[in-house]
Amino acid sequence: MATGRFITLEGGEGAGKSTQIRLLAQALTDRGLEVVTTREPGGGSDGAAGIRALLVAGDTPWQRLTEALLHNAARHENVEALVRPALARGAWVLCDRYVDSTMAYQGYAMGVDRGVLADLHRLSTGGLMPDLTLVLDLPVEAGLARAGSRPGAEDRYERMGMAFHERLRQGFLDIAAHDPGRCAVIDATGDIATIQARLLGVVERRLGPLGRAA
Amino acid sequence: MATGRFITLEGGEGAGKSTQIRLLAQALTDRGLEVVTTREPGGGSDGAAGIRALLVAGDTPWQRLTEALLHNAARHENVEALVRPALARGAWVLCDRYVDSTMAYQGYAMGVDRGVLADLHRLSTGGLMPDLTLVLDLPVEAGLARAGSRPGAEDRYERMGMAFHERLRQGFLDIAAHDPGRCAVIDATGDIATIQARLLGVVERRLGPLGRAA
Repeated sequence: MATGRFITLEGGEGAGKSTQIRLLAQALTDRGLEVVTTREPGGGSDGAAGIRALLVAGDTPWQRLTEALLHNAARHENVEALVRPALARGAWVLCDRYVDSTMAYQGYAMGVDRGVLADLHRLSTGGLMPDLTLVLDLPVEAGLARAGSRPGAEDRYERMGMAFHERLRQGFLDIAAHDPGRCAVIDATGDIATIQARLLGVVERRLGPLGRAA
Repeated sequence: MATGRFITLEGGEGAGKSTQIRLLAQALTDRGLEVVTTREPGGGSDGAAGIRALLVAGDTPWQRLTEALLHNAARHENVEALVRPALARGAWVLCDRYVDSTMAYQGYAMGVDRGVLADLHRLSTGGLMPDLTLVLDLPVEAGLARAGSRPGAEDRYERMGMAFHERLRQGFLDIAAHDPGRCAVIDATGDIATIQARLLGVVERRLGPLGRAA
């Protein structure tokens, strides 16, 4: 019986996650794999979408741990309603943000105890970890410039200042350094096609040849 | 320096908690105490109120543990923003529902692992427990009849059937039996004044004489 693969994309603002996840999904689909794309917070169920709406509503000054609890609530929905069933039937699941984002944003950048966050992850997901986590890394200035050029309202995190975003970047790099078997850091500077090639190369090296595109 | 007291009211649907908490607050205020009344989910902050709105929106079929995570998120807001500061300045805090409701509803009645819920409580509140928990107990039929006669939309839990509400009642009684130093079961049958007298009697016996009404 086929076993699916669970791949997460992580990184700060403007790292290009949503573009790259779309291209990766297409590349895997072209190779005949069933691909399920989701994101956090908000993917997996209407309930999770409701939690996302609450989190991004904007100016509610949450307690820091409350944010982490809400992200874990949304994550539990996504894992139970979508990720586990998809993996069980052999699909490849690509998730835009997962536990490492909670650890980097609420832990490294905002100062919530990382041991508490690790315990919370075990409680809310049974400790489900990805087979592969791709950390899209680029200098903070470059990320914020990219994010700032997007249409739509400025993201709450984008307003948090350089020191916040430096802690965030170093957090992702620290997570990757401590879990090199799961994580790969991808240089996210350069054009979209270049980054895509780097990313597909890492997926093939880590998870084996993907076969030929149809 | 004065140290406040933390009292929670617990019980199933139609037990009369909100009426009794109002009367208890008045009785304590009449004795010259600073009283802060709150409720869960939803008390303590605008953020908590947002979480309550999400929880009571109605027909979202949450995963059971998601509900517990959302209640813990609302509880963290209430504890950090309201309960701890009030206790620190010597106020008496009366809270309509707290950790025992999560344990009874999501644990006993809906089947979420109670060890997980206990761990979650430690993470989200640092393990803060009330000085006194008043469990308003009455037969399920009587509670549902009272709840059903209230104006407004039928509560989601009220539709869950007799077996659910029996598990809930037995859950509250089991919690009280295992923590007799903190919990007191109050017979919630009879008229409002009778129940109030029982309840005030328990508060005086457990927490000491309250002084004379002004």
